Amino acid sequence: MNMKRAFYIGRFQPFHLGHYSVITSIAEEVDELIIGIGSAQRTHEANNPFTAGERVMMIRHALEDIDVHFYALPIDDIQQNPVWVSYVTSRTPPFDTAYTNNPLVIELFEEAEITVKQPPMYLREQHSGTEIRRRMLADEEWKHLVPDAVADVIDEIDGVRRLKRVSGTDGFDY
Amino acid sequence: MNMKRAFYIGRFQPFHLGHYSVITSIAEEVDELIIGIGSAQRTHEANNPFTAGERVMMIRHALEDIDVHFYALPIDDIQQNPVWVSYVTSRTPPFDTAYTNNPLVIELFEEAEITVKQPPMYLREQHSGTEIRRRMLADEEWKHLVPDAVADVIDEIDGVRRLKRVSGTDGFDY
Amino acid sequence: MNMKRAFYIGRFQPFHLGHYSVITSIAEEVDELIIGIGSAQRTHEANNPFTAGERVMMIRHALEDIDVHFYALPIDDIQQNPVWVSYVTSRTPPFDTAYTNNPLVIELFEEAEITVKQPPMYLREQHSGTEIRRRMLADEEWKHLVPDAVADVIDEIDGVRRLKRVSGTDGFDY
Amino acid sequence: MNMKRAFYIGRFQPFHLGHYSVITSIAEEVDELIIGIGSAQRTHEANNPFTAGERVMMIRHALEDIDVHFYALPIDDIQQNPVWVSYVTSRTPPFDTAYTNNPLVIELFEEAEITVKQPPMYLREQHSGTEIRRRMLADEEWKHLVPDAVADVIDEIDGVRRLKRVSGTDGFDY
Amino acid sequence: MNMKRAFYIGRFQPFHLGHYSVITSIAEEVDELIIGIGSAQRTHEANNPFTAGERVMMIRHALEDIDVHFYALPIDDIQQNPVWVSYVTSRTPPFDTAYTNNPLVIELFEEAEITVKQPPMYLREQHSGTEIRRRMLADEEWKHLVPDAVADVIDEIDGVRRLKRVSGTDGFDY
Amino acid sequence: MNMKRAFYIGRFQPFHLGHYSVITSIAEEVDELIIGIGSAQRTHEANNPFTAGERVMMIRHALEDIDVHFYALPIDDIQQNPVWVSYVTSRTPPFDTAYTNNPLVIELFEEAEITVKQPPMYLREQHSGTEIRRRMLADEEWKHLVPDAVADVIDEIDGVRRLKRVSGTDGFDY
Repeated sequence: MNMKRAFYIGRFQPFHLGHYSVITSIAEEVDELIIGIGSAQRTHEANNPFTAGERVMMIRHALEDIDVHFYALPIDDIQQNPVWVSYVTSRTPPFDTAYTNNPLVIELFEEAEITVKQPPMYLREQHSGTEIRRRMLADEEWKHLVPDAVADVIDEIDGVRRLKRVSGTDGFDY
Repeated sequence: MNMKRAFYIGRFQPFHLGHYSVITSIAEEVDELIIGIGSAQRTHEANNPFTAGERVMMIRHALEDIDVHFYALPIDDIQQNPVWVSYVTSRTPPFDTAYTNNPLVIELFEEAEITVKQPPMYLREQHSGTEIRRRMLADEEWKHLVPDAVADVIDEIDGVRRLKRVSGTDGFDY
Repeated sequence: MNMKRAFYIGRFQPFHLGHYSVITSIAEEVDELIIGIGSAQRTHEANNPFTAGERVMMIRHALEDIDVHFYALPIDDIQQNPVWVSYVTSRTPPFDTAYTNNPLVIELFEEAEITVKQPPMYLREQHSGTEIRRRMLADEEWKHLVPDAVADVIDEIDGVRRLKRVSGTDGFDY
Repeated sequence: MNMKRAFYIGRFQPFHLGHYSVITSIAEEVDELIIGIGSAQRTHEANNPFTAGERVMMIRHALEDIDVHFYALPIDDIQQNPVWVSYVTSRTPPFDTAYTNNPLVIELFEEAEITVKQPPMYLREQHSGTEIRRRMLADEEWKHLVPDAVADVIDEIDGVRRLKRVSGTDGFDY
Repeated sequence: MNMKRAFYIGRFQPFHLGHYSVITSIAEEVDELIIGIGSAQRTHEANNPFTAGERVMMIRHALEDIDVHFYALPIDDIQQNPVWVSYVTSRTPPFDTAYTNNPLVIELFEEAEITVKQPPMYLREQHSGTEIRRRMLADEEWKHLVPDAVADVIDEIDGVRRLKRVSGTDGFDY
Repeated sequence: MNMKRAFYIGRFQPFHLGHYSVITSIAEEVDELIIGIGSAQRTHEANNPFTAGERVMMIRHALEDIDVHFYALPIDDIQQNPVWVSYVTSRTPPFDTAYTNNPLVIELFEEAEITVKQPPMYLREQHSGTEIRRRMLADEEWKHLVPDAVADVIDEIDGVRRLKRVSGTDGFDY
């Protein structure tokens, strides 16, 4: 069962076409791809409206037809940087390469002697979670920026309504 | 023992006449009222000078003479929004209505199918914890903004002195 | 507002007539009594069937007619003995005497220089949570061992049924 | 995207043919199946030798050819029973039925008004994680009790050797 | 500053002559020795009567005259085996060899590619924390089993009295 | 073994000559000095580049030749102010005086009836962690601001490189 496996992490709030293009591109180089859903525990916030479970569902359906075998797995934020890599590796299948542009993640993986590669780039202005959430709040078009399956999931969970509800708030500011 | 019970949450730093007027107003509609003391674990901070225990004491004495049966119970901040409602309901008597204006709390209760009502309003400029703490720091009058019993509690615990001590700090900024 | 306040802690699974007699006896010596609901976070277990909120409700109703002013406040187990006293004192009104027979609690309070007294005894064979839960499981009489208000609360929450459900289990033993 | 989704939870230490037969049976009744990997955080113990990531990998490969769309998602033990259901539902796609025989899990789901069904039975003497781990320790045959893909994963991670190493210990018993 | 550093871990409840002989023996092979005080957070228990700070003090004074440069550092139990090694290495100076007989610790260090050596043995019947605590409780001789400085520390903190107090208890068994 | 012991806390990111001069000055007044390494769990951040273990090593080597007996012990941030003092005292040898300028720390120690003294001052513009980290990032001179041994430790762990890596980031901002 020895395979070439890679790890790629994002918040996916929501999963969009930029993520999709990175993943299909990485997929060409590996046997299996592990997609880490970062800040998994965050939800019902202006910048993190969707639960980990909802994001898993978005990814699984959006990638239904791609050729590579992939895993979509929640990764909680843990507050201690030096144990983050071993936390990740205990919750994922073994992998030998991590794809990331985040400098802290690069440093942590390299200190743990895991190979880091830069993922391919995509157009960040449009294909960003921030822009998509802004459009949702402004009742502008957003569905063309995400895979169809993601739009379906957001409809099923009434996600735009939730985003609007939690955006007018600083959390538990009684 | 089936009764009409409602839940109302605040930080009560300190408990003031605005809170008092909301509570007496809600009290007319219910058999029992559960007062959640939010951010219970926070204390000795510029915005949260009083312990949960001190806030319980303020509320119990301030409401000694009102007619409704009430509970004053600490509710810690927990960092995971989607479990917050079940955390609250496990630490309070059963209730069927929550009174709150906080959009996140409204969303969470409604997703859990608990009825939410807007509490009656009060004059927020004067009757606010922020204003009272500002006056305490500036040695201005503040006791007319809180029930007498609250002023007594703050005197017993030397609360103004503590507020002044912890206000000149960013917490553990060694 | 300086008053003579005492602290008494139990698990109250459920609150029974033994607890009641201890409390009425302590009540004669103090102005206010703080009743700590220990292991507050435990519930839905064979030895801890009731939530903190349900236990608060039992105590408040059972003591409705006693003369002393009392507080019923949840105290979670925390896993670090040496900070337990300061955890308790931050979540309760100030007190000067603790009533307990537990050797660890005695040691911790005495190291913190808080006076400890032995609470008065009661007949432990009958008036014990263990015996009452055994009777509930065996469909034997138990209501004469608790205040009427406690029996009412347990009926309202369908507590005996829950106890039976969670008793045949080792927790999350998948 | 509204679908009939069910939830099934186990520890899967390791995933074996008993699990496989339950899952193929449930799969006939639903559109999607969420497989919760319980006690996800436990690993490197005599009764829990495999990490959450390794168990995800076992399940994904063992079920590669079944017809139903499934998710394999880690579920950590959390120490507070009453929030367990909302913790699970925040980390999984929405589901309407839970399959379990565990009395505590039944009680918690039913209090949260989620339908519970009994999963179909299988021969528990042979098809049990306990028996398989016993055979691994005793160098007896065990591979016929698990799907081929699971045996491959355990070989890849040198799992039997790890089990032997961690079995002679009470954890961190310095 | 590159030096040969080793790591050795124990609970040291209390530090005794067996520990002393192991440490002086390891000290001959290294430039610096890191002594991890395991289960640091446990104290005021029958098997763990002393705080981390008290154990640090015992070790520092007991080893005052040995030649090697050493560190005595608390290591809390953390409940997740796979991150334990990175937790330890983030809280200690860098080291290249770990001395331990504990099978789990051996496995975890070896998976992290840190060299493990067996520490030299000592007579375990007498030189054991268990035996020393038993003697303390029974008012038998124990001071000849520990370095003089350790006996002094235990006297300063009135440790035998504390041990007796916390031994008659199952912790917070209200 | 009764001695005059004092407690002094800092973050030591990194340990510099300002800290050194404070410590040598306090050292004249006490038998033993406990140096608390605050925010111990923070590392690999722009303002907190070094691990607790690395900071312990800096301090131990920098102070090798001073006359007083000292301890360098990690103190994690804990999020509950009122238990902070008992957390500290459980992880340090007993002490009777704390040296600090932090208003919150002063308040907490004084509420716990521990004597607080102001540590002697030093030139804060140059001798500050902030300034030293700024110089490291700008490739300016910084080694003359720290003890030689600290510069050696930072070289051994390749600390400037790590600081540069983690400075271009907001943590786990996927």
